[in-house]
Amino acid sequence: VTGPLSAETRTKLAAVSTATLTSQLLGRGFRSTFLTGVAPLRPDLAFVGTAFTLRYVPAREDVGISSHFDNETNVQRLAVESVGPGDVLVVDARGQTGAASLGHILATRLLRRGAAGIVTDGALRDTPRFRELNLPVYCRAAHASVSSILHHPVEMNVPIGCADVLVMPGDVLVGDAEGVVVVPRMLADEVAEEALQQERLEEFVLAKIDAGAPLVGTYPPDEQTRLEFRTTQ
Amino acid sequence: VTGPLSAETRTKLAAVSTATLTSQLLGRGFRSTFLTGVAPLRPDLAFVGTAFTLRYVPAREDVGISSHFDNETNVQRLAVESVGPGDVLVVDARGQTGAASLGHILATRLLRRGAAGIVTDGALRDTPRFRELNLPVYCRAAHASVSSILHHPVEMNVPIGCADVLVMPGDVLVGDAEGVVVVPRMLADEVAEEALQQERLEEFVLAKIDAGAPLVGTYPPDEQTRLEFRTTQ
Amino acid sequence: VTGPLSAETRTKLAAVSTATLTSQLLGRGFRSTFLTGVAPLRPDLAFVGTAFTLRYVPAREDVGISSHFDNETNVQRLAVESVGPGDVLVVDARGQTGAASLGHILATRLLRRGAAGIVTDGALRDTPRFRELNLPVYCRAAHASVSSILHHPVEMNVPIGCADVLVMPGDVLVGDAEGVVVVPRMLADEVAEEALQQERLEEFVLAKIDAGAPLVGTYPPDEQTRLEFRTTQ
Amino acid sequence: VTGPLSAETRTKLAAVSTATLTSQLLGRGFRSTFLTGVAPLRPDLAFVGTAFTLRYVPAREDVGISSHFDNETNVQRLAVESVGPGDVLVVDARGQTGAASLGHILATRLLRRGAAGIVTDGALRDTPRFRELNLPVYCRAAHASVSSILHHPVEMNVPIGCADVLVMPGDVLVGDAEGVVVVPRMLADEVAEEALQQERLEEFVLAKIDAGAPLVGTYPPDEQTRLEFRTTQ
Amino acid sequence: VTGPLSAETRTKLAAVSTATLTSQLLGRGFRSTFLTGVAPLRPDLAFVGTAFTLRYVPAREDVGISSHFDNETNVQRLAVESVGPGDVLVVDARGQTGAASLGHILATRLLRRGAAGIVTDGALRDTPRFRELNLPVYCRAAHASVSSILHHPVEMNVPIGCADVLVMPGDVLVGDAEGVVVVPRMLADEVAEEALQQERLEEFVLAKIDAGAPLVGTYPPDEQTRLEFRTTQ
Amino acid sequence: VTGPLSAETRTKLAAVSTATLTSQLLGRGFRSTFLTGVAPLRPDLAFVGTAFTLRYVPAREDVGISSHFDNETNVQRLAVESVGPGDVLVVDARGQTGAASLGHILATRLLRRGAAGIVTDGALRDTPRFRELNLPVYCRAAHASVSSILHHPVEMNVPIGCADVLVMPGDVLVGDAEGVVVVPRMLADEVAEEALQQERLEEFVLAKIDAGAPLVGTYPPDEQTRLEFRTTQ
Repeated sequence: VTGPLSAETRTKLAAVSTATLTSQLLGRGFRSTFLTGVAPLRPDLAFVGTAFTLRYVPAREDVGISSHFDNETNVQRLAVESVGPGDVLVVDARGQTGAASLGHILATRLLRRGAAGIVTDGALRDTPRFRELNLPVYCRAAHASVSSILHHPVEMNVPIGCADVLVMPGDVLVGDAEGVVVVPRMLADEVAEEALQQERLEEFVLAKIDAGAPLVGTYPPDEQTRLEFRTTQ
Repeated sequence: VTGPLSAETRTKLAAVSTATLTSQLLGRGFRSTFLTGVAPLRPDLAFVGTAFTLRYVPAREDVGISSHFDNETNVQRLAVESVGPGDVLVVDARGQTGAASLGHILATRLLRRGAAGIVTDGALRDTPRFRELNLPVYCRAAHASVSSILHHPVEMNVPIGCADVLVMPGDVLVGDAEGVVVVPRMLADEVAEEALQQERLEEFVLAKIDAGAPLVGTYPPDEQTRLEFRTTQ
Repeated sequence: VTGPLSAETRTKLAAVSTATLTSQLLGRGFRSTFLTGVAPLRPDLAFVGTAFTLRYVPAREDVGISSHFDNETNVQRLAVESVGPGDVLVVDARGQTGAASLGHILATRLLRRGAAGIVTDGALRDTPRFRELNLPVYCRAAHASVSSILHHPVEMNVPIGCADVLVMPGDVLVGDAEGVVVVPRMLADEVAEEALQQERLEEFVLAKIDAGAPLVGTYPPDEQTRLEFRTTQ
Repeated sequence: VTGPLSAETRTKLAAVSTATLTSQLLGRGFRSTFLTGVAPLRPDLAFVGTAFTLRYVPAREDVGISSHFDNETNVQRLAVESVGPGDVLVVDARGQTGAASLGHILATRLLRRGAAGIVTDGALRDTPRFRELNLPVYCRAAHASVSSILHHPVEMNVPIGCADVLVMPGDVLVGDAEGVVVVPRMLADEVAEEALQQERLEEFVLAKIDAGAPLVGTYPPDEQTRLEFRTTQ
Repeated sequence: VTGPLSAETRTKLAAVSTATLTSQLLGRGFRSTFLTGVAPLRPDLAFVGTAFTLRYVPAREDVGISSHFDNETNVQRLAVESVGPGDVLVVDARGQTGAASLGHILATRLLRRGAAGIVTDGALRDTPRFRELNLPVYCRAAHASVSSILHHPVEMNVPIGCADVLVMPGDVLVGDAEGVVVVPRMLADEVAEEALQQERLEEFVLAKIDAGAPLVGTYPPDEQTRLEFRTTQ
Repeated sequence: VTGPLSAETRTKLAAVSTATLTSQLLGRGFRSTFLTGVAPLRPDLAFVGTAFTLRYVPAREDVGISSHFDNETNVQRLAVESVGPGDVLVVDARGQTGAASLGHILATRLLRRGAAGIVTDGALRDTPRFRELNLPVYCRAAHASVSSILHHPVEMNVPIGCADVLVMPGDVLVGDAEGVVVVPRMLADEVAEEALQQERLEEFVLAKIDAGAPLVGTYPPDEQTRLEFRTTQ
């Protein structure tokens, strides 16, 4: 299972929370799938996308600490012009927030190329503008300085770490107002389906709890509660 | 002084800011009473409650790292079903934000049981749902993963550290949009009364400063300013 | 170039973003000019001001850990009453957020004295009140405790570090919703002018990117794009 | 399996490295068993012991921040006088190194009571004296201040976290010059035996590598190498 | 009490441990007097000295990030040539270890000027050479880079923070193999005397504990033990 | 200049300190060349080598968290068997010390393959054995757990960050008792020669300072001192 994500799976993933997805992944043995500390600049927007990765190393004076960029050779720029519809650009900024990973002009270009979102474990600049841009964007901090102060882009579409979580090119990323979860590509279809089922059940459970039911028998639901649930479907 | 909090004290505490309360406590020698870095998910809600504590230790594979919970034995679940009206559930998550302390279904149950609030020095999950729940909730971060990834609940109603502040069962916690302060139970009545007095005076002082008065004589108020204040009461 | 900031420069600086200013400063060799992690409490307000610095050292029992302050000798209070119109009070709190740098009554006095803003690499208290005060204020965190728990003020108008950035008395600070940038005084006029030019060009570039232009030729702009830009001016 | 540790298991555990033990535990699914950052003050001494735990919470002015201790009520003192032969005192100091967990006089008492060692995720004081004391002691740092500045002891022999690893009373701790590993009590016998086997094989493998053998076939050993190994035993 | 330290006090302070001194200071209400994380490069050397402080701010390109120094204007160099016999140079490096505070040539000059020691909350360079230099030196780390990369010296003999502890010019610093304690100048004489008394008693207590005495009655010593002690003096 | 390092340059680099090399690199504009916090396990051994890099990403359950390794496919193992004489294996462990980067058996293999050293910004395991192995090894910490708990090796000989410093394959690394400096390959020859000159001059300067000369005129050396120096050569 490695081809493009089906529309059906994409729809299901867009309908569930990142919290539910981490539970589904934990049920399959995956413990570390949520990007700790990476928060949305646009919590009103959610996204589902396939990972297009970009890797930064520390900057050094002989590889160009400046505010000028060459679109023909700079890997950050090449990555932006390689992202396709439904991709999410995921940046390994080594968790460092002392300079931006990119700014709103590149983000606008990504939006025009059909990107599903931008995720970095570093900072973004022009964040006031990002709040007006119709693109789901997640970062650890705002920082006005250009990336080249701190970061040198060296590779795209290689496995990276982002917020201490492995991201393989093609992995499925899902973001909501809580943050971003990484779903290994091969698990996307089954996790999407079961997450949807889990949420339906949990909404039923929540309604009962909200109505005053105790935890015992209700959460987790026992056989009786599950039976009641099934009769409502 | 260890019985339930009087309605009068509760009312006074609800009327003052956490900033004023830390000053009152400092005046009595208590230096560390505010939970650094613990922020409200619902800054529009404030609370006064008595501490019901829950202690987590690091998770280990033989004590259950999973997404399933047994309400009969799991201390987290037992704690939720023990919290009573006016209690605030205070979780010692060892300051770790790599998994949640609990999620919105348990929080809904706590709300139905009459809890005054939830405070953790770790993370919460389902935070988008928390923003819709009518319960004052304070945490250090959002994290989608269930608590059992990182935390194993072992005890309730024992002294704990929360955000490096001591919380004894029965201590009074007060939260506003700034954060949470811990008032030792035996000081609650007198601190409540004097905090209220302090705030009345400070509002008077603030009005003068706002009208252009210099600090000298006004803040802190000298005898003349205090006299003026008393005539306005 | 060390006199008061001209109205023209002040106006230009108020019109550009902190992101643009860091680029201008980087173009002149200055790498570290943005205050990492220092965020606005009032992101709707921006400011331009000249630095009036205040330096804190760690508190010790013989220099007064209390909630009472002497306006005649306390350097924090002397600093507040020395700040003049257009000044921004910049506090070196050693990056520590376990107590406030100051609270809203002193901030109100600063506002009445004409202060352009307040910046600290520590915390502020009474933050709910700050959100109602018509003053641009930037900090790292909210903390209800008074400054004397942690900080002892020793000097004003000396060079300080704030968020690991050098701030010299008289340096120009500019803040927007992203954060605060420090412009060395001698560079303020030229940086202001060139930042304005840069932003005009970038708005033109952004409009093209937004309309679907690729990065190559557009960002950075090549000679053709620059020519187009000039014809629009 | 919860009784005292057998002399045989103790002997085996004393003969193997903490590195080998973590591998054995990982083979059984236990990922987090080594105390990160906890180093020996006496790297020339190793130990095997059963955990006697002591839990600290943050100090507060009403629970005694002083240099005087009451042996009848102070839980730290009660713990010291409860430790028996073969026990290792394990302190949950919440990872904080701004004051000691205990000093050399209490350590001397522990030595006289037959303690196998002392382990803390905080600091120790009188460390120059510890270097002369014939007791394996592990900590994160040296700090001259007494524990009561920062810590208040509240419980003994409850589950604790130490350096973010779960320690249950009765768990087996093994220390060498690298650090300390926690072996869940029920696994001690089998892990001890298999660790010993693993080390014998690895010494054989190491000798081959040292003599110039490549990794392939040797490390991990293939069937041929294992056969060779068995003929040497 | 602010003149030079008497030879008698100096002798007493040299005879006691930093652990004992922190206890004496705590008895007088001073909680934070030990430099957390600042370790000796020469644990075989101890010192007593009066503080000569040096304050660094973050470096910036217009104040000289280079490997060349002007002895006439550089405050670091002026400080070195101002240190007198019995002084200890205490550097406020803002706790940053990404470059040195100074190196072994300046340290050799300080030794020749009679300095009692060097203390920094940052790093030192040429640390292999420091291990051969007959001067007590304390730091947080080794770093090969010159100070100007990170630090700009601005003032000497002003109050500073060092490792989050206040150091006033003229305060008495005492260092041993555990680290460094700051004794406020006015307390030096009495603390020296009482620390010596405390240590004599504790040696007596330790001998009893070492011989098998329990804590109760012995540590802290009761009246009987104190009587025994006095008969041995 | 990218071929193998000449024997002459290697000899010169082995004769100078890492402190001197950082100064030479700073003189050429390179500010960040020393690996902060990376310390030698064998401070008695120094090395000069060319970088053979190995890059780790965070581990995930589908890429093998276990204690078993396949030499045919595991990139860590392939890297070890690719290192040649004079190479130094440099590991990007993302600065994480919660598991080892490798252990002493692989290190022994590297020694037999002619490696000049091992450098990681993470931890090493079997550190007691490393202290007996005749190989210069640098790390941030000791940790008994195997690398696969935390790390998954994905690439070799790509640019990496190590302790926040850029390391390009083929860069020259020099280590002494202070730590490790990265010399960009193209600068190695000239930096080696000038570092040697600098050290000769500094030894002369140090002798004068040691004999009582003041800083002025001596350090930095003025024309007169430089003349004296040249007459001694």
